[in-house]
Amino acid sequence: MIALRQKPIGVFDSGIGGLTVVHALTECFPHENIVYFGDTARVPYGSKSPQVVREYAAQDIDFLLGNDVKMVVVACNTVSAVALDVVQKHAHMPVIGVIVPGAAAAVHSTRNKRIGIIGTRATVNSRAYAHAIRQIDPDVQVFSQACPLFVPLAEEGLTDHQATALIAKEYLFPLLLEKIDTLILGCTHYPVLRTAIAAAAGTAITLIDSGAATAVEVGHLLDTTDLRNPSAQKPNLRFFVSDIPAKFTEVGERFLGQRMGMVRRAAVGGV
Amino acid sequence: MIALRQKPIGVFDSGIGGLTVVHALTECFPHENIVYFGDTARVPYGSKSPQVVREYAAQDIDFLLGNDVKMVVVACNTVSAVALDVVQKHAHMPVIGVIVPGAAAAVHSTRNKRIGIIGTRATVNSRAYAHAIRQIDPDVQVFSQACPLFVPLAEEGLTDHQATALIAKEYLFPLLLEKIDTLILGCTHYPVLRTAIAAAAGTAITLIDSGAATAVEVGHLLDTTDLRNPSAQKPNLRFFVSDIPAKFTEVGERFLGQRMGMVRRAAVGGV
Repeated sequence: MIALRQKPIGVFDSGIGGLTVVHALTECFPHENIVYFGDTARVPYGSKSPQVVREYAAQDIDFLLGNDVKMVVVACNTVSAVALDVVQKHAHMPVIGVIVPGAAAAVHSTRNKRIGIIGTRATVNSRAYAHAIRQIDPDVQVFSQACPLFVPLAEEGLTDHQATALIAKEYLFPLLLEKIDTLILGCTHYPVLRTAIAAAAGTAITLIDSGAATAVEVGHLLDTTDLRNPSAQKPNLRFFVSDIPAKFTEVGERFLGQRMGMVRRAAVGGV
Repeated sequence: MIALRQKPIGVFDSGIGGLTVVHALTECFPHENIVYFGDTARVPYGSKSPQVVREYAAQDIDFLLGNDVKMVVVACNTVSAVALDVVQKHAHMPVIGVIVPGAAAAVHSTRNKRIGIIGTRATVNSRAYAHAIRQIDPDVQVFSQACPLFVPLAEEGLTDHQATALIAKEYLFPLLLEKIDTLILGCTHYPVLRTAIAAAAGTAITLIDSGAATAVEVGHLLDTTDLRNPSAQKPNLRFFVSDIPAKFTEVGERFLGQRMGMVRRAAVGGV
């Protein structure tokens, strides 16, 4: 059983955004080993069809399973929204997506029962957050807005740029008209733009980081399944990507909030 | 020979941007049949490594060859920059990329022999335009700037948005300092943002659209190889993509400048 507990948590994402979830995991569980896979050769998933995302997700999870993980965190809102069942079917082990924890945290936070969601076009079109929220509280009203430019703005590091502020203001305007009091950052890239999003939202709106909410849920699952790593040693964090563009490590360390060490290329999906 | 002349010109791109090249081709050659393939499931190529782009290019060209084309236009600056040899090796027929025609048009235009190039990170890092320009005129000085946000801004239709103007101004600033008099739009998405780019560049700088320059070169090649379609009928334009996101046709028609008709999904690269 000790050997099983020491196995890594597997985390995967369409690219680099899931590193904000790894960041939340390392903050909450400083002794858990982690294997991360980012499908950087085929990123982004958020603008692709559900069918293609499901095909890619099946290939991604196979890679993690080959690395002998004890649990899988789907650190990609798009995959969590449209392909979580594919991952669960393949995995035969505990699987957590980012949608349900984010939805639960938002329902817990809202006072006026009006929740906003921002995410990629695929995540928003899937209505997965709205569905998860209404499962918890059918009285909550949900308003959503796709923000396709936030991912490139985050990756380019325009975190406090005037252009980002302008675009954030436009994206959030329809949600503010709906008098939301809680806003889910429904894409793992968005915590990087948190300051700009918070400024556009104003102080009356609580921001919910789905990745951070997911880390809390991982803690519950580690306890209920008795899978928490008892080691007090520095953990082993390993990073794999399907392509290594020049800027991966630079951008990745900004997302992860720490040094990444070696990043290796993994052959996934026939490339 | 007539049958050969009536075969379509094959055009491929990493996604939707190549439709600006198809637009230029249809303007110049209103009777040529065209088959277009956009690898929308794996777009963008511009942030990927040369190795991955070469693997994808080989798969893309195989698809066009299966559609019995008479000539291939690589309407993707990234592929033209890092994988034109792969395409030429596979094709066994005339192949034109967008780099050499764009470079030639810029050398023809410059008066002070100072040319700027904007493109994706992959295109800029490849130095393919600089190499092509110096092959034509070794005295020309070349200054380049990657503009990674232009592709998402073009695809989101923020053509005359203040955020686009701000970002264009920042991207072009280092090139203006170098006193360029000619600027190559080294990415097929950029003609969509031409107004914003022209405003940031100012009236003293001539913009060169590589796609339009390529269409002129296709004309020369059709004549020298005697492959021009003698038909005076309305041509057959066929569009294939590896994924069909919701917005493809809407965005595509803005790039193409006309209605697209049916867009079909093609299985390329194991998906």
